[in-house]
Amino acid sequence: MAPMSGSALAARRSALAAALGGSSYDALLVTSRENIRYLSGFTGSNGGLLVTSGGECVLATDGRYLTQAAREAADLECLEARSVLVTLVERAAARGLRGLGFEAHALTVEQLGVLERAAGDDVDPRAAGHLVERQRVVKDAAELEVLRRAFEITDAAYGEVLGQLRPGTTEREVAWSLTDAMRRRGAEGPAFDIIAAFGENSAVPHHSPTDRPLARGELIKLDFGAKVDGYHADMTRTAVCGPAADWQREIHSEVAELQADLRNSATAGVVPSDLDAVMRAWLESHGRQVMHGLGHGVGLAIHEDPFLTPSSTADPLAPDAVVTIEPGIYLPGRGGVRIEDTVIVTADRPVVLTTSPRELVEV
Amino acid sequence: MAPMSGSALAARRSALAAALGGSSYDALLVTSRENIRYLSGFTGSNGGLLVTSGGECVLATDGRYLTQAAREAADLECLEARSVLVTLVERAAARGLRGLGFEAHALTVEQLGVLERAAGDDVDPRAAGHLVERQRVVKDAAELEVLRRAFEITDAAYGEVLGQLRPGTTEREVAWSLTDAMRRRGAEGPAFDIIAAFGENSAVPHHSPTDRPLARGELIKLDFGAKVDGYHADMTRTAVCGPAADWQREIHSEVAELQADLRNSATAGVVPSDLDAVMRAWLESHGRQVMHGLGHGVGLAIHEDPFLTPSSTADPLAPDAVVTIEPGIYLPGRGGVRIEDTVIVTADRPVVLTTSPRELVEV
Repeated sequence: MAPMSGSALAARRSALAAALGGSSYDALLVTSRENIRYLSGFTGSNGGLLVTSGGECVLATDGRYLTQAAREAADLECLEARSVLVTLVERAAARGLRGLGFEAHALTVEQLGVLERAAGDDVDPRAAGHLVERQRVVKDAAELEVLRRAFEITDAAYGEVLGQLRPGTTEREVAWSLTDAMRRRGAEGPAFDIIAAFGENSAVPHHSPTDRPLARGELIKLDFGAKVDGYHADMTRTAVCGPAADWQREIHSEVAELQADLRNSATAGVVPSDLDAVMRAWLESHGRQVMHGLGHGVGLAIHEDPFLTPSSTADPLAPDAVVTIEPGIYLPGRGGVRIEDTVIVTADRPVVLTTSPRELVEV
Repeated sequence: MAPMSGSALAARRSALAAALGGSSYDALLVTSRENIRYLSGFTGSNGGLLVTSGGECVLATDGRYLTQAAREAADLECLEARSVLVTLVERAAARGLRGLGFEAHALTVEQLGVLERAAGDDVDPRAAGHLVERQRVVKDAAELEVLRRAFEITDAAYGEVLGQLRPGTTEREVAWSLTDAMRRRGAEGPAFDIIAAFGENSAVPHHSPTDRPLARGELIKLDFGAKVDGYHADMTRTAVCGPAADWQREIHSEVAELQADLRNSATAGVVPSDLDAVMRAWLESHGRQVMHGLGHGVGLAIHEDPFLTPSSTADPLAPDAVVTIEPGIYLPGRGGVRIEDTVIVTADRPVVLTTSPRELVEV
C-alpha cells in the first residue's frame, strides 16, 4: 500500500481539530478503524487516536504494530499501550483535557466500562456524534484518485469475466474469477463478499455464491467491487445467459429507467432520505416490492455515511460525496435485477465512476 | 456452505438456555455475528437472536436476508425487522421477559441507547458476560470436523507454495499463491489477512505483504490459514531462502524448543495466563524480547476465548478447546522466527491440527 501523503492527513486532522474547537469537547478519542486510518494512515488492527481541539494528535497501539505505526504514521507521536483506551485516557488526563468525546458507534459497552474506570474524576467521557464520519462524506483529492483506480479495476474485471461466462459456470467460480481479475489489476482484493446470483437466486438481494451452475435463459446478477489502498468500489450489473425472456426485459428496463432517473437526481443539495422516498414511491406505483434502501456512501468503509434510506438523517448531499444508486426489482422464485452505479456528487449531473454497460447484455 | 445440522444447533441453544436458567437473566439478546451463527446457522450481516431461559429462540433480520434466514435457520421463527434491536426487545416485552441480558462486547454504546429507549419500563437490559463465547471454547463434534478440514487445506497449501518459492518472488505473490491454493482445495478464502514477511520484515510480528522480493539468505515467515464453513485455521512456519546463517539457525532452534515445550504443556487443567507466563519467563531468561502473547482460541472467530495472554481471565483449559501456541523471537532490522501450531486440548498430550514440518526448511 502506498502511504497516504502526510499533508493530506494533516489537513484532515486540522479540519477535525477545528470542528472540535467549535464543540464542547476538548478532545476526541478515535476508535473506529476507518477513522484512525483516515486521520493518521495507520492500518493496524489495534489502535486509537487522541485528537485535541488544539490540533495535537497522538496514536496508541500495542507492541506488535510499533514498526508499522512508525512507517504509516511517521509524523505522529506513538505510544506503546497494553490497553489503548487506558493509555489515551491517561494522556488526556495528563494534558488536562476534561471533556473527552468518544465514538459511541465504535466503542462497545464493555470498552466504555474500561474507559470510565480509567477516566476517574479527571476526565469526563461523553458520547460524541459521527464527527469523523461526517468529515469523511466529502472526499478529498487523494481519496478521489484512489477511488477512481478502484472503479477502473472493477469495470475492467467485469468486462473480462462477463466475456467468459458460459452455461455450466458456477456462482462460486464467477466470484473467484472476479476476485482474480481484480487482483491481477492491482486490487488488494474484493471490497466485500461478492454477490454472484444466477436464476432464481438473483431474486435474493444479498445472495452468497454457491456451486449452482448457470443455465441458458437465466439472469446473472453480479454485485462486487475492488479494494484499493483501503478504499472500496461497489457496482452491480445484471445480464442474462442467452436470449432474454420478455419478463426479464421488462423488469430490467424498469430498473434501468428508474436507476437513470435517480442517478441523475443525485446532485448537491438533495436530501438522501428524500431520494430514497422517490425510489419507494416509483416502485410502489409500479406494483413492485421495496426490498432495500437506495444506496450508501462508499470510501474507507463499504457502507458509510451518507445512507440513502428512509431513516437516514444525513445532511443534503454535498459536492464530492461518493454514493451508490442501486434500486432493484425482485420476483421471488424467478429472478431479480439490480443496477448499481457509484457517483461523485456535483452541483449538476454527477460524475459516474462505474462505466460498465447498463443495458441487458445477453452472454 | 453446508448448513450445520439442526440437531447440533438445537443442542447449543439448549445448553445456553440451561446456563440462562441458572442466571439472573430471563433471556439473552445475542448480537455477536459469530454467536448468532453458532446458535442458529444464520450468516447474514444484520441479525439478532433472542434466546430465553425457557429454551425459546427467535431470529430477527431485515428484508434482504429473509430468504437466507429461512434456508439457514429453517427451524427458527424469523421476524422481519427494520431495527433488529427494537423488534427483539418488543418480543421480550410481549413475552414478559424482564431481565434481558445483552452482549456488552458486541453492542456499541450507540446501540445500547436504541435498546434502552425501546425497553421502556417493561424490560430491564443488563450487561451479560461472554456467555456464548464461554460455551464456544469447547468445540463439539461438528465443529471439530470442520476445523480438521480447514487445517488439512492449510497444511496442503503450505506444502505446495513452499515448493514454489524462489529468489525474486514477492511477499504479495506468496500471499496470493497461498490464497489460491487454499481456494482450489475448497476453502472459502483465507481466514485472515495473510502475513508473508521476508528478511527484516520477518522481525515485524504482524507484517502486511508488500512487493518486496525474496533474496537468498533471508528468512520467510508465513502466518495464514484457511476459512471453511465459517471456521478458521491458523498456522505459522518460518523457512529460509538458501542455506541458513548461524544466527538464523540459533533463533529458529530456540523458538522450536520453546514452542514444543509449550505445545505439549497445553493440557486440560492448565490456566491460560500461566502458560503465557512460562513463555515470558523463558524468553526473558534467554535475553529475548517479549513481543506478543502466547496464543488464542480459534473457531468461528480467528481470535476468540480462551486467550493465552497475561491479562487473560480464562478458565483452565478444557478438553476439546482449540488453541494456538505461537511464540516468536524477533531481531529488529534483521529477522524473526515464529512457529505456530493449533491444537485440540485433551487430558494428556494435545492433538496437533497443524502437521506441516516444523524444522528450518531451506528452500
